[in-house]
Amino acid sequence: MKNVAVIGYGVVGSGTVELFEKNRESINHKVERECDIKYIVDLRDFPDSPFADRMIKDYNIVLEDDEIEVVVEVIGGINPAYTFTKQALERGKSVVTSNKELVANKGAELLKIAHEHNCNYLFEASVGGGIPIIRPLNKCLAGNEIEQISGILNGTTNFILTKMIREQLDFNAALKMAQELGYAEKDPTADVEGEDACRKICILGSLAYGKHIYPQSVHCSGISNVTLDDVAYAENAGYAIKLIGSVKPADGGRVSAIVCPRLVPKSNLLATVDGVYNAISVTGDGVGDVLFYGQGAGKLPTASAVVGDIIDCLKHKDRSLMISWEDCHEEGYVVDYKSVETSMYVRIIAENADELKPSISEMFGKLTYIERKNRPENELAFITPTIIESEIDANLAILSHSAQIGSKIRLL
Amino acid sequence: MKNVAVIGYGVVGSGTVELFEKNRESINHKVERECDIKYIVDLRDFPDSPFADRMIKDYNIVLEDDEIEVVVEVIGGINPAYTFTKQALERGKSVVTSNKELVANKGAELLKIAHEHNCNYLFEASVGGGIPIIRPLNKCLAGNEIEQISGILNGTTNFILTKMIREQLDFNAALKMAQELGYAEKDPTADVEGEDACRKICILGSLAYGKHIYPQSVHCSGISNVTLDDVAYAENAGYAIKLIGSVKPADGGRVSAIVCPRLVPKSNLLATVDGVYNAISVTGDGVGDVLFYGQGAGKLPTASAVVGDIIDCLKHKDRSLMISWEDCHEEGYVVDYKSVETSMYVRIIAENADELKPSISEMFGKLTYIERKNRPENELAFITPTIIESEIDANLAILSHSAQIGSKIRLL
Repeated sequence: MKNVAVIGYGVVGSGTVELFEKNRESINHKVERECDIKYIVDLRDFPDSPFADRMIKDYNIVLEDDEIEVVVEVIGGINPAYTFTKQALERGKSVVTSNKELVANKGAELLKIAHEHNCNYLFEASVGGGIPIIRPLNKCLAGNEIEQISGILNGTTNFILTKMIREQLDFNAALKMAQELGYAEKDPTADVEGEDACRKICILGSLAYGKHIYPQSVHCSGISNVTLDDVAYAENAGYAIKLIGSVKPADGGRVSAIVCPRLVPKSNLLATVDGVYNAISVTGDGVGDVLFYGQGAGKLPTASAVVGDIIDCLKHKDRSLMISWEDCHEEGYVVDYKSVETSMYVRIIAENADELKPSISEMFGKLTYIERKNRPENELAFITPTIIESEIDANLAILSHSAQIGSKIRLL
Repeated sequence: MKNVAVIGYGVVGSGTVELFEKNRESINHKVERECDIKYIVDLRDFPDSPFADRMIKDYNIVLEDDEIEVVVEVIGGINPAYTFTKQALERGKSVVTSNKELVANKGAELLKIAHEHNCNYLFEASVGGGIPIIRPLNKCLAGNEIEQISGILNGTTNFILTKMIREQLDFNAALKMAQELGYAEKDPTADVEGEDACRKICILGSLAYGKHIYPQSVHCSGISNVTLDDVAYAENAGYAIKLIGSVKPADGGRVSAIVCPRLVPKSNLLATVDGVYNAISVTGDGVGDVLFYGQGAGKLPTASAVVGDIIDCLKHKDRSLMISWEDCHEEGYVVDYKSVETSMYVRIIAENADELKPSISEMFGKLTYIERKNRPENELAFITPTIIESEIDANLAILSHSAQIGSKIRLL
């Protein structure tokens, strides 16, 4: 049967078609029947594609074709992906996607529609590219209460930080290199400012805690303010700076979620994850710590996750597979990040900075001063004890009368 | 409904009951109905257990009870586990297990019975304890052709090797420490000689390549011959010695599988996995390299995998979930390891060993001599080029006329 339609023939779409066709024989064996891609929907023309005979422009043909069981939505963005997905699910066609923006914003609603129509909305590719994480979290770790999830969820920023750490390129030079290599887009905002990682941690948190976490409710700061001075202090103190998305339970059935650069101790495997690779650490009350590592983006790695989901949909027609989550618009479900305890690296600039040590020590109690090679006289860096973030900020507000706050970066 | 029975109240059985009861509310939410453990079958008495009222001694009560949907077999060993599993599956009851010995020896047959009776035989806990690997391989990576799997699959031996590497304890002292800490059994043979890791790589290989790989067909050597001298040479050359189970495709639809200590380059994440932790690296033609890391054994980590499987069975009653594999008794399906290309670390002992260099170099062509601190005059170590293993052996047979072959360890 020709029962699959791919919507969007960009990087992920073409990778999906390529991988599916390459491994079709073994895929059919796994599904236990003949399956194939019938349509590729894209508004553009691809006359030279070996799959040109399957290209169509009108999505309605897919919707009206009863042979199509699985729609692969790899357009990206909210619209028209949202409408297309909804229409397919309402007709009982399963939808497979890599579209993190759509899942992070409409996941609860679309999962509910899938459930009501005995079909599936699967999105293994939406987090960590090819790294298996959605199904492991949803199935393998379902017997656990999840105590925390922390991950390097964006390859672009991890590439930039790796270049800063390993080759002392500053942020702008490293970003430029990432752009030249095709790892960063021309407008890198979504990656660099943490929006992409934010969508991903929202998906993981929604899955782990059963209620939808909307990206707008999660504090998100990127890496564009990280300096080589910060990298040097961190290295010297035994840390690597990484952009980390994290989520964990909070009091009263709420959750705490945040995306920000963090000082990661080198003993933590996340600190050893370099370049465009991603890694996600999950702690459960039964399993303890587990970690998933691999290529978090790219044509074929992402296609790998998409094709895995297609196979699952084909194998389990008319059967809802996922444990879904509820929609949630409760005010304060995601707690204010300022009310969460953290330890913070702080770098200040002031004339004769060392002279401020007594008053800083008095403010924070037990804290650790850290060094870097050739630390200038007008610079001082320290790591605060673990206290409520708003208390750190209150202290820094006082300190800002006598020094400039150069950087502050949370510890993991 | 009280629809689960746990057979065997040892470490994993009691952990399973503990974790299931602790998280029962959220488990019921995920399954979308009330579920509970009805029976715990064990020949021993546990009068002080909080679950004493569920303890029974007669397995037939479980078999005859139509309310029981899932049987958790955590007895270990082939018999009576095999008979119990078969009887349950033939009645359409799903079976969940951590029993790697049974899966490695009877997996194909039991999966077939499960498939015929629309129920499931799930064994996420059989490899890597709590680490999600069976389902990721079976589902998430199903769109890939698997190019290789290599893993640290046994925590006991990894603990021993870590102590040898980090604290220069010799094998016997490290084994003794592992036994004192409860990481190694009184008779440590199955762990130390690689049998346990062998069962696990057989399960992963069967899953990845679709045909049953029997442990008897896989060459398996353990770590009891690894010396501190070997550790020192390896360290000095940038490698860590790890017990690795590996499987990959070979010519003619066959596979190559082996369990042995290996020199793992420190740039490989597997080299950084210390103590009782396990890690499994999988390479697929789409996904590239992915790695799964966590606690490979222990009461609650293993229970985590078992409970995840129970949930999946309860959620998908009367539906076969797994992609299963075929039985296979083809002579030579697993190729002779001597016919596989490898690079080998070799340590020889001979009077004035350095004088043998010209003849060794002539034998092997391009090879690398490696050093250790205070290398004695009568010792020499080198790494061969990558050639068919039987050719290495033929050369070493000639060399053995003029030197004693102290160690040989394959590279990863």
